[in-house]
Amino acid sequence: AASQVNKTAHAFDKSRLEALLNRRFFYAPAFEIYGGVAGLYDYGPPGSSLQANIIAEWRKHFIVEEHMLELDTTIMTPAAVFETSGHVARFADWMVKDSKTGDVLRADHLVGGVLEARLAGDKEARGLAAAPVAEDKKKKKKTAKAAAVKLEDDVVKEYESTLAQVVLLSCSRWIWATQPEIYLPYGPCPIRHLDNYTGPQLGELCRKYKIRNPDTDNEVGEPQQFNLMFTSSIGPTGQHPGYLRPETAQGHFLNFSRLLEFNNGRIPFASAQVGRSFRNEISPRAGLLRVREFTMAEIEHYVDPDDKSHVRFPEVRSQVLTLLDRNVQEAGSSRTTQMTVGEAVDKGIIANETLGYFIARISQYLVKIGINPARLRFRQHMGNEMAHYATDCWDAEIENATGWTECVGCADRAAYDLSVHTDRTGHPLVVRQALKEPIVTEKETAEWNKKLLGKTFKGDAGVLQKLVEGLPEAELVRLKGELAQGSAVVKSADGKEFQLTPELVTIERKVFKQSIREYTPNVIEPSFGLGRILYTLLEHSFWAREQDIERGVSLSSYLHTVWALIAGLQVLSLPPIVAPTKVLIVPLSAREEFAPIVQEVSNKLRRAGVFSRVDDSNTSIGKRYARNDELGTPFGITVDFASVQNRTMTLRERDTTDQRIGSIDDVIAAVTDLVLGNIDWEQACERLPAYDGVQAVE
Amino acid sequence: AASQVNKTAHAFDKSRLEALLNRRFFYAPAFEIYGGVAGLYDYGPPGSSLQANIIAEWRKHFIVEEHMLELDTTIMTPAAVFETSGHVARFADWMVKDSKTGDVLRADHLVGGVLEARLAGDKEARGLAAAPVAEDKKKKKKTAKAAAVKLEDDVVKEYESTLAQVVLLSCSRWIWATQPEIYLPYGPCPIRHLDNYTGPQLGELCRKYKIRNPDTDNEVGEPQQFNLMFTSSIGPTGQHPGYLRPETAQGHFLNFSRLLEFNNGRIPFASAQVGRSFRNEISPRAGLLRVREFTMAEIEHYVDPDDKSHVRFPEVRSQVLTLLDRNVQEAGSSRTTQMTVGEAVDKGIIANETLGYFIARISQYLVKIGINPARLRFRQHMGNEMAHYATDCWDAEIENATGWTECVGCADRAAYDLSVHTDRTGHPLVVRQALKEPIVTEKETAEWNKKLLGKTFKGDAGVLQKLVEGLPEAELVRLKGELAQGSAVVKSADGKEFQLTPELVTIERKVFKQSIREYTPNVIEPSFGLGRILYTLLEHSFWAREQDIERGVSLSSYLHTVWALIAGLQVLSLPPIVAPTKVLIVPLSAREEFAPIVQEVSNKLRRAGVFSRVDDSNTSIGKRYARNDELGTPFGITVDFASVQNRTMTLRERDTTDQRIGSIDDVIAAVTDLVLGNIDWEQACERLPAYDGVQAVE
Repeated sequence: AASQVNKTAHAFDKSRLEALLNRRFFYAPAFEIYGGVAGLYDYGPPGSSLQANIIAEWRKHFIVEEHMLELDTTIMTPAAVFETSGHVARFADWMVKDSKTGDVLRADHLVGGVLEARLAGDKEARGLAAAPVAEDKKKKKKTAKAAAVKLEDDVVKEYESTLAQVVLLSCSRWIWATQPEIYLPYGPCPIRHLDNYTGPQLGELCRKYKIRNPDTDNEVGEPQQFNLMFTSSIGPTGQHPGYLRPETAQGHFLNFSRLLEFNNGRIPFASAQVGRSFRNEISPRAGLLRVREFTMAEIEHYVDPDDKSHVRFPEVRSQVLTLLDRNVQEAGSSRTTQMTVGEAVDKGIIANETLGYFIARISQYLVKIGINPARLRFRQHMGNEMAHYATDCWDAEIENATGWTECVGCADRAAYDLSVHTDRTGHPLVVRQALKEPIVTEKETAEWNKKLLGKTFKGDAGVLQKLVEGLPEAELVRLKGELAQGSAVVKSADGKEFQLTPELVTIERKVFKQSIREYTPNVIEPSFGLGRILYTLLEHSFWAREQDIERGVSLSSYLHTVWALIAGLQVLSLPPIVAPTKVLIVPLSAREEFAPIVQEVSNKLRRAGVFSRVDDSNTSIGKRYARNDELGTPFGITVDFASVQNRTMTLRERDTTDQRIGSIDDVIAAVTDLVLGNIDWEQACERLPAYDGVQAVE
Repeated sequence: AASQVNKTAHAFDKSRLEALLNRRFFYAPAFEIYGGVAGLYDYGPPGSSLQANIIAEWRKHFIVEEHMLELDTTIMTPAAVFETSGHVARFADWMVKDSKTGDVLRADHLVGGVLEARLAGDKEARGLAAAPVAEDKKKKKKTAKAAAVKLEDDVVKEYESTLAQVVLLSCSRWIWATQPEIYLPYGPCPIRHLDNYTGPQLGELCRKYKIRNPDTDNEVGEPQQFNLMFTSSIGPTGQHPGYLRPETAQGHFLNFSRLLEFNNGRIPFASAQVGRSFRNEISPRAGLLRVREFTMAEIEHYVDPDDKSHVRFPEVRSQVLTLLDRNVQEAGSSRTTQMTVGEAVDKGIIANETLGYFIARISQYLVKIGINPARLRFRQHMGNEMAHYATDCWDAEIENATGWTECVGCADRAAYDLSVHTDRTGHPLVVRQALKEPIVTEKETAEWNKKLLGKTFKGDAGVLQKLVEGLPEAELVRLKGELAQGSAVVKSADGKEFQLTPELVTIERKVFKQSIREYTPNVIEPSFGLGRILYTLLEHSFWAREQDIERGVSLSSYLHTVWALIAGLQVLSLPPIVAPTKVLIVPLSAREEFAPIVQEVSNKLRRAGVFSRVDDSNTSIGKRYARNDELGTPFGITVDFASVQNRTMTLRERDTTDQRIGSIDDVIAAVTDLVLGNIDWEQACERLPAYDGVQAVE
């Protein structure tokens, strides 16, 4: 049987993970040799590959499985589109300027951070829990001062109630950079958002609580709105302002008519897109969790507003989710509930089946790629968080060292997006549905003698016509009766009287038939921040082997060479489906006699669709494996003298470091099944005997 | 045996292809419902899929096959990077403004277009070949007037010699839009580039030949430079100017040190990246051939400047290429030569093995995805086209309706890129190589008595020291001899004399040992414009069946519904590896009895890694196939009553429309082999008997 592994022997250490990711070039600050730019990162070979695999699995799980229509639309967007969508007016954060240095701070982060720091200081002064915030010596940046100053009891209450208005996200520590635009390596991240406050309210809080820039102790100015879209201009004349899209969604909506036609006019259907988006964050400093350029994956699922059931809902009905609903939060709690999707929809906690279906599918996807389900929850937006047009909105939040972070949003946006573009362009983004059974209605209808009407009432003819045609059914019946008697009188709202005769107008019961139904579909939008998912996945995958931890502690992350030599302390337990490399082939040495078998194994794996790499570098097998444990490579194959003589190979599993042995073809078959997810390691152990470290070689 | 197909029964008709691509939503102008923006396109479902497959094959052919290191770097780039690279100063086109309307035109396009039009008019007036340029009635745009005006003989010569300076690209027709910034659907494309002229020279040509804006007949102003990068600014203060990258290359270069380390310090190696880039073209109007936002794939291969051999060159040595070298062009010809890569490198036509290797690999790739090899050539840059630092540069040009278009560039950029970033940042982007044998050198070396030197010569001490140490070996030997005699005199360039004594300086022969070699690697850069490749591939794949062509001729492309009904006139013969859908499964009807077999076939294909789609729409099988011929789906499987009763299916090939029959599993095996490229249709026909249209069903 497979060995047991203790992955929690050592507490999670974010700085060790970050050092590993940087050293092995999962990702690194972009333009590093130019001093870097906050919020911009480059992905190196293992990061690119991990991202590509996360995207490939996303495509399989959503696009292929649900026959979604994929799009690839442009990033550069003319201003009119975002004027219509509301982004130009509303996609903004409040910022304040330091009154002397001109440094720019996010107003909500400033207020939240300072009040939190004061509360922490108060706790310390009272001799309560809160440990003093550790100064980060290397960076020599000041933290918001958590001076041990006791506050009045009512002040504590006031601060706490102010902070209670914020979205409940934990925040570990708080540091202000003096130059927020300059790259701050692995800065800690301010997470509490005072999203619920308006700019003027935040300004009032700054004055009321005498909040200053903690870096300089200078006063700050009034909050000003800063639009988060990057601006540019299209063409040589500078007359065509453009924005870099902050989301891919508008590219879907604008193509709705073409997509509907491609789908033969049928609804429901979904469009999907993976692409780059941009947000000009005021002062990003949370690694991949808050960046200025990022890859998103978005789905727009178009449904009949009168029927938001989902044909595949029964498949997910019994799936259990961890929910944090609106009511719980509004009562000031963050206690989650375990509940099946079916129950949540039945009870009206999740607004409809389609929304519930996607929440369940999002959950399946995240767990499949390796997110720890115990650290995943779905948080419903509170009333004041949600856009006015949205019906319901849930965020998939993933817990990590900085707290709970929104990684996927899933909203029922009603008909908002398609409607506003229809209104602005005059191009109807609607569904026209031939009704199977035409809708037949009967109603009393006025037929006018137009000539006589004009002659008799002149300028009032139109008013009269409208007046009569707008009368309720019962009134028309009364009128009909009176006309049958010879004449009738109707009175306008302003008291004017009109005398009607049977020559002028007849009222008859008529039958109407409607055979086409035209409507604007509603949109359910699951929207994935792939960089955030990638980073939290790395946190969830990271651990250090029990026996090895001490060796690495004192080493600076800059000692790349030393690290490379003693690597093997740490492991990234990435699932095979997303691991950058699936199988490492390790020949005992680079000697020529191993080459034909290495080539054979490599070819057979490629033909089976399994991506492998060969490491024939001049170092011990153990070190080569250890180096690849850090890259998350799940399986290793050793080619040695026994392979040449007896055609056997050993197969090593990353987490347990268990080794099994078998014939070349048996090992290839087993590892292929492992990578494709057909069997787990336990089952592989049933197929291949344990390797005792000794092989029969002459 | 397989049937023969005549794909050239009808002349290629660009407007028919474009109508198909638009109607089936391969791609469409972005923001169409907002009036569109020139040079921005959205890819719909088949276009996205085709693009994804082209990229997937690119990754296999280059990244996986050559173990390249993949990157994903940011688009938003701080200005300093492009100042260093030279883009801020030089990545620009010359434009002229209409003196009255302010409309902007590309100066080289204007001069080229007007002179060509005048020459065409002259030919017409002389009763020679040139047919009058057809006015495009629908668009009501004026073409550059090709009025039938005879020119003086010497004027004709002068015009021709002016145009002979341009890069040799054919140009079919020439239209100026009055509003170049506004979307011009499927506008014809100006292709002749007068790249060889400077702005002032173009201005002189305008004056000399009285060239005016053909749209308005107004004069144009002096040419001004317009930088083609989109500008933006990073962060809230507006103090950090940024550009959207016009190529992905800088992201590779800036990460060179990390990449080298990832590769364990070994060289040669290559980095690779697929990503979006942006060029703010002055007036794009050539469909996908000249756009403002596009997906590129770039490779930067780093080599030792002293050794540009390539270890895999023998594998491509005998491959034949179609070459148009520099000398042929400079002699005014465009006649190509067929030659093996080996011969081209041996003769020095292609500068080195590595460059030759990549040119051969590019050729293999393009042909593999479906580019017609007879319409592919490699054109060498002429001396005046090439950047001053480049050693050699070849473009893969693909012929299409607008002429020969550059789709891939392959340049030896020497050490330029890494050197300039090293100089600007002080971060050495170099290779440090431990020499196996240290290099030992001996030379005469001056040793100074520093104290005495300073005391004796004061401010001149430094000058003297430099002077002596800079002397050639022979001079030092002479000096040494004189010093042995008691004293010596050296003279500076400005005539100053210095008296030297043995106390002040001794000259001795010393041995130096160098054990590390440090150098800046050279870069070979293959750079792919994926949109151009995609478009030319569609042109090369498009044809119409002989018997069907007449039916479609009179139809406007706007009659979508009618087209959908009579589809099947046209075929896109995309190779299976890039076709958006590989296999279409067509049940006789949507009846439930076919569902289990459709499900079975679909699952088995998915497990074999073959992407299929089911079309159970309510129309004839023939129409369903025809609709998918337009989408390039290479194979179709029909599920009918015989499938239910006898477990047989028919397999249809797109180009021949041949049908074969076999058991469900035999058909699945054959189609899988076909899609994976293990067999061709001829071989499939050997495995499956022909289908005569009649099946034994009770």
